[in-house]
Amino acid sequence: MKHSPHLARLIEALRTLPGVGPRTAQRMAFHLLQEGRPGALALAEALGAALTSVVRCRRCRMLTESELCVICAAAQRETSLLCAVESPADVVAIESSGSYRGRYFVLMGHLSPLDGIGPEQLGLRELETILDEGGVRELILATNSTVEGEATAHYLGELAARRGIRASRIAYGVPVGGELEYVDGGTLAHALSGRQAV
Amino acid sequence: MKHSPHLARLIEALRTLPGVGPRTAQRMAFHLLQEGRPGALALAEALGAALTSVVRCRRCRMLTESELCVICAAAQRETSLLCAVESPADVVAIESSGSYRGRYFVLMGHLSPLDGIGPEQLGLRELETILDEGGVRELILATNSTVEGEATAHYLGELAARRGIRASRIAYGVPVGGELEYVDGGTLAHALSGRQAV
Repeated sequence: MKHSPHLARLIEALRTLPGVGPRTAQRMAFHLLQEGRPGALALAEALGAALTSVVRCRRCRMLTESELCVICAAAQRETSLLCAVESPADVVAIESSGSYRGRYFVLMGHLSPLDGIGPEQLGLRELETILDEGGVRELILATNSTVEGEATAHYLGELAARRGIRASRIAYGVPVGGELEYVDGGTLAHALSGRQAV
Repeated sequence: MKHSPHLARLIEALRTLPGVGPRTAQRMAFHLLQEGRPGALALAEALGAALTSVVRCRRCRMLTESELCVICAAAQRETSLLCAVESPADVVAIESSGSYRGRYFVLMGHLSPLDGIGPEQLGLRELETILDEGGVRELILATNSTVEGEATAHYLGELAARRGIRASRIAYGVPVGGELEYVDGGTLAHALSGRQAV
């Protein structure tokens, strides 16, 4: 059955959301146009407002509404620690762990030459400027544990090494609270090779 | 970590979508504000356009952009058959089966007195008007196979019976292509009690 033009356009637009296929998009569209009308209006307005006001932090590339994000603007953060992550969601995750007091650098992706994503696209020139300033003593590499994430971490490690800055990779192992039985082989291998004396 | 106000508002707005929790909403918002910016703009525009132009069909309550939906406006549909469904998605599903040539009546929900959804909210007065016109010979009850769906079907069946119009319920049984082994007990009971001579 062919949808009416504006409905079809809405379904198409919803499909650009991550993890949303044609069926879910249709369900969302019907919801928004039936009982969800107030929510739909709020969403349209919120989208417009966010698109115009949310920009990237001049220093760390985190999403923000000012020139500097709250973390870069905070006086009490440890400026000698810099943690490189792939996405703003990673910053949120690390912040909610409450275990890190340094600053971040958000790559907004990982090196992927086939997709045309090189050092330029990840803002590595800006990262080099920060490292050249001399305040950073340690660069923590918190990119994902994927092939691209590892390659990116390796590349960043070289940037730090060239400047005599210490680089470290976050630890991989068994998740806290996890049962060994259900942990995959790759993670277990990491957990074993990364074992520490007690 | 506290999100900036416009970002927080966008995440909150995305949470009103069906099946979207706080984590997914955050992921969607970050996507929309990073690589998904063109899609975000398209979504905001599509939402606005759909909200102003998509209305309900005057006759069957289906979502449409004209006074009558394409099905009610079509000359070649069988006007003696009326199929009552709970939502526009059900119309799409039945239409894509290609096995029905009658018209629909979209309840936009099911009877649920506790939620304040009675005959009035489901447009049953409009349905009664259609039945009173005399053209409908059979009312097909295609509400969901849930407690509320069954109750709604029962109520609609009475409306038809009072006017001497035949009411029928769609068949429940083993899905075509399904293996008996994996079919739940309730469905199997339906399949057995609804068995037909071959």
